[in-house]
Amino acid sequence: MPNIINKHIEFSTPWFKLIKKTVTGMSGANTSEEYYSILPDDYVSILAVTRDLKVPLVRQYRPAIEDYSIELPSGHVDQNETPEQAIKRELLEETGYMALEIELLGTLSPDTGRKSNRLWCFFSSKIEKHAEVGDNEGIIPELYSLSGIRSLMDKGSFDHALNLAVFTLAELKGKISFTK
Amino acid sequence: MPNIINKHIEFSTPWFKLIKKTVTGMSGANTSEEYYSILPDDYVSILAVTRDLKVPLVRQYRPAIEDYSIELPSGHVDQNETPEQAIKRELLEETGYMALEIELLGTLSPDTGRKSNRLWCFFSSKIEKHAEVGDNEGIIPELYSLSGIRSLMDKGSFDHALNLAVFTLAELKGKISFTK
Repeated sequence: MPNIINKHIEFSTPWFKLIKKTVTGMSGANTSEEYYSILPDDYVSILAVTRDLKVPLVRQYRPAIEDYSIELPSGHVDQNETPEQAIKRELLEETGYMALEIELLGTLSPDTGRKSNRLWCFFSSKIEKHAEVGDNEGIIPELYSLSGIRSLMDKGSFDHALNLAVFTLAELKGKISFTK
Repeated sequence: MPNIINKHIEFSTPWFKLIKKTVTGMSGANTSEEYYSILPDDYVSILAVTRDLKVPLVRQYRPAIEDYSIELPSGHVDQNETPEQAIKRELLEETGYMALEIELLGTLSPDTGRKSNRLWCFFSSKIEKHAEVGDNEGIIPELYSLSGIRSLMDKGSFDHALNLAVFTLAELKGKISFTK
């Protein structure tokens, strides 16, 4: 089994650290190689469904892709917060919906090649409108039906891979029947 | 619409660049904020199915997560290579299977928050064993049925989110009926 013989922070940003690891035994007994990975806080996403089967999504400008995107309510887990608390906070802040019950669909690796954090995927069919949220720091909430999201995916307009992974888990766990 | 008024490479690794962008108008008319994103080469993944409905996967040690993972054959697009050429090369190198036909399911953003590259998702039901591949630099090919992969997902042992996104697209496009 490979062995990590050295690990240090090479560069820090307010949102993630760039870690450099020296690993032995990756491609042979006497090899030593250097790997770079990103360490952000854990990430949470929720597929939530209202009583009349609408899904709250958020539209926002994303500097990384230099374009707007439509996505599931998501965010990072803050210090002194559980993933459950984080996703309830994000859902409320971004969409005005309060989750009365949430369910963990599973946790995933957002990128086994480069990221060391985890993605916590949640589902809720018990949400209630708590506040009207307009444009909250550039994040605009919108409601879509599941078939509407499917159309967006078909057109390539709902294309955040980490969101699509949540749909796979939701189908796997029998929460939605998205692709029928 | 927000505007990127400055962009430069803050740090380089052999696999990706760390980009710093200054963006105006993100959370109000007169605001200016700094964002960090990662720019790797484009990434390709393939869900391929043999004539007897087995899916070639690869098992390998991943320094980012400090553990082994089981994943779809994947990799980065090299210079002077199309995404189609890249995925055929990766499939052959990692599993010994040659794809006679491939189909693009769609392209996704691997991480709208932090990554500026694209994920190209491919499907093939026309693959042929071309070479026996053993342990190729620590990458070990394995064959699974779709229900076997479903069991791995259920247990959390097939947990690369970018791979799960490929399954959502494959279902959406009617290529597999994974979750029934």
